[in-house]
Amino acid sequence: MPDRKTSTEVLVVGGGMAGLAGALALRANGAEVTLVERAPEFGEVGAGLQMAPNASRVLKRWGLLGKALEIGVRPKHLVFRDALTGEELTRQTLGGEFEERYGAPYVVIHRSDLHRILLEACQDAGVRLANDVVVEKVETVNHRGVAHTSSGDIYEADVVIGADGLKSTLRAAVAQDGPVSSSYVAYRGTVPITPETPAADLEDVVVYLGPDCHLVQYPLRKGELLNTVAVFKSPSFERGEEQYGGVDELEAAYKDCIPAVQLALRNLATGIRWPMYDRDPIENWIHGRLVLMGDAAHPMLQYLAQGACQALEDAAVLQDSTVGSVFNDDGVDTAAWDRAISDFNSARGARTARVQRTARVWGESWHVSGVARVLRNLLFKSRKDGDFQYNDWLYGQEDDGVPAVPADGTGEMRTVSLAGTHA
Amino acid sequence: MPDRKTSTEVLVVGGGMAGLAGALALRANGAEVTLVERAPEFGEVGAGLQMAPNASRVLKRWGLLGKALEIGVRPKHLVFRDALTGEELTRQTLGGEFEERYGAPYVVIHRSDLHRILLEACQDAGVRLANDVVVEKVETVNHRGVAHTSSGDIYEADVVIGADGLKSTLRAAVAQDGPVSSSYVAYRGTVPITPETPAADLEDVVVYLGPDCHLVQYPLRKGELLNTVAVFKSPSFERGEEQYGGVDELEAAYKDCIPAVQLALRNLATGIRWPMYDRDPIENWIHGRLVLMGDAAHPMLQYLAQGACQALEDAAVLQDSTVGSVFNDDGVDTAAWDRAISDFNSARGARTARVQRTARVWGESWHVSGVARVLRNLLFKSRKDGDFQYNDWLYGQEDDGVPAVPADGTGEMRTVSLAGTHA
Repeated sequence: MPDRKTSTEVLVVGGGMAGLAGALALRANGAEVTLVERAPEFGEVGAGLQMAPNASRVLKRWGLLGKALEIGVRPKHLVFRDALTGEELTRQTLGGEFEERYGAPYVVIHRSDLHRILLEACQDAGVRLANDVVVEKVETVNHRGVAHTSSGDIYEADVVIGADGLKSTLRAAVAQDGPVSSSYVAYRGTVPITPETPAADLEDVVVYLGPDCHLVQYPLRKGELLNTVAVFKSPSFERGEEQYGGVDELEAAYKDCIPAVQLALRNLATGIRWPMYDRDPIENWIHGRLVLMGDAAHPMLQYLAQGACQALEDAAVLQDSTVGSVFNDDGVDTAAWDRAISDFNSARGARTARVQRTARVWGESWHVSGVARVLRNLLFKSRKDGDFQYNDWLYGQEDDGVPAVPADGTGEMRTVSLAGTHA
Repeated sequence: MPDRKTSTEVLVVGGGMAGLAGALALRANGAEVTLVERAPEFGEVGAGLQMAPNASRVLKRWGLLGKALEIGVRPKHLVFRDALTGEELTRQTLGGEFEERYGAPYVVIHRSDLHRILLEACQDAGVRLANDVVVEKVETVNHRGVAHTSSGDIYEADVVIGADGLKSTLRAAVAQDGPVSSSYVAYRGTVPITPETPAADLEDVVVYLGPDCHLVQYPLRKGELLNTVAVFKSPSFERGEEQYGGVDELEAAYKDCIPAVQLALRNLATGIRWPMYDRDPIENWIHGRLVLMGDAAHPMLQYLAQGACQALEDAAVLQDSTVGSVFNDDGVDTAAWDRAISDFNSARGARTARVQRTARVWGESWHVSGVARVLRNLLFKSRKDGDFQYNDWLYGQEDDGVPAVPADGTGEMRTVSLAGTHA
């Protein structure tokens, strides 16, 4: 019989953004939290990350927004341009009315910086952190989650949070699905901003929309670095090849774009390609005392820049679902756990499904050509800066720092959205 | 040597809308006009026709608007609906501000009724009309147009107006092109309105937009008849078959549409199918003393409902280009003809090319599916009744009854249009 190495109130499986945020949220409610990560060290790969107000509001609640703003950048505008002409299609000013409406700033930050802020907060809060732990399966025995690791160890907790990402092992308990390839591939890069860097749009998040491709640029690290992401449809994927999206395809994908876009490709690190995946939404994230969160529960395409944001929302709602019931003055109320994770799942399921679906359609609208491009450009140009009809459902409105997720879980009072009309 | 049967100042070849309007316009300037038509009788096939204000203004100039209104209908609104859901996408109220802005009403009328009004006006004005005359070729000899007919006769005139339609024979003098098939086929029908006719939208022009299909309905003859046009993409055309667009394809094309649309198919006369053609725009319509007008010069797809309207505009501009120069108190100034037809061509070329091109893109936007449909519907719904930004260039503004075609020939002061952004 294997050694019961660890017994804890909450076991979090996965040390990415979602796992750290979930651990922090439950620790903030007074739980004894253990977080295990399969990698030998904690860390994040990738480049920049956009934190919309629905996410920065969560950092604000935890007192971490100041740290994020110390290292991150508040872009002045979000600007969409046509990649074939450079024409501006629409823009949103991100300070002033925008920030007031949503109760927190729009922040761009290096993924590794946000990850470190969350990791340090977990450490400071007393979350127990362990590396090199690969959880293979979680059972529920006598209202306790029992986690079996690849080394034969067993962790036991009142609840196990499955935050093991897109390729989640634990998701197998609730769904027999797999990642869905979008046929798009990303390259990313972060380069120093120098006097030679073209000065246009350097304080903005700029998205160039092209046929079957787009390019995103924004500053990082107080404006010292320029972050670039190029995403394009891979012809070799369409042909069914296993290795797809090489650098040759990258160059070819942007050949009709304006020089500013083509020059920006030089800022990419071409050593790593990032095939873009999501999964279809699923309703149930719970199996016994295992509950999924973050990408394990609702992996999404990056077009709304909401992957990490929704993980932070998850954590905030998990905190709200457990405060005062699961954890109260009499200690941990284990009988309340079932209700708490069910409330969490209910509050988050429809909303994250909407974000997943909207991200797909929104991305499609970026990559159109022909008459669809004409229609897209006219639609975007018909929108005025400060028209929040497409933002409210996603970024919510300030409500004392709580993510604006109403009872039905789907969003705000305004219902106009790409997803809404696509249904 | 053949008999020089007829010498005249103006010879119009073709007795459709364009030829009759052109003959009437030049006769109004005092010219001796002979019109020849290949068919044994004058007449029009087809069902209803939409006269936008840019066309009804021309009838008003000629004192014929009253007759058109006696037999036609002034629809209350132009309404676009999604054919899959029935959802209203946008509407334009056609009375009041619309009519004031453009100086004439929007009128729907049976093609044969409008044709008869123009024919009678030509007869009353003293245009010489001849049937069974097939003009095969026009030469220019000593500044006179010489028209050779299939029966060996020769007509001679200061100018020959080539108004012989989409399949124009005379166009060969200026272009070696042919009709371009759009792969779409139309069926039309006109049925009596009875108490059993569904009452919705009966006073409006309603356009249902579906994937690869659309359906148009409006009242005719003072509201006694219901006019229906169904237009769909033919799969057998796409497969390269010569006979395409049969009734089986008609039924199949609308299978996903709402019941109101499917029921409306019963109102079609399925004995005649109308393959939809246009041609690419050409700049020059002049060869010696031959000048093209109407469909012979600029055949267009029907999506803007501007085929007959542009023919009427042609006639009005032809009238303006010749008044006081070609015809003056001293009689016909034959030396001024070259300048007059050149002015006409210049004034009309860019504008009709824009209408031809816009009709193509506009039609494409009607038939989209997937994300393009989402974008189209959002764009249409973002438009408010009374927003004239997409209409002004086409319908012009009142200018003492003259079609609003400015010096550059392309349209009005506002330049936002599907065509404008597609360029």
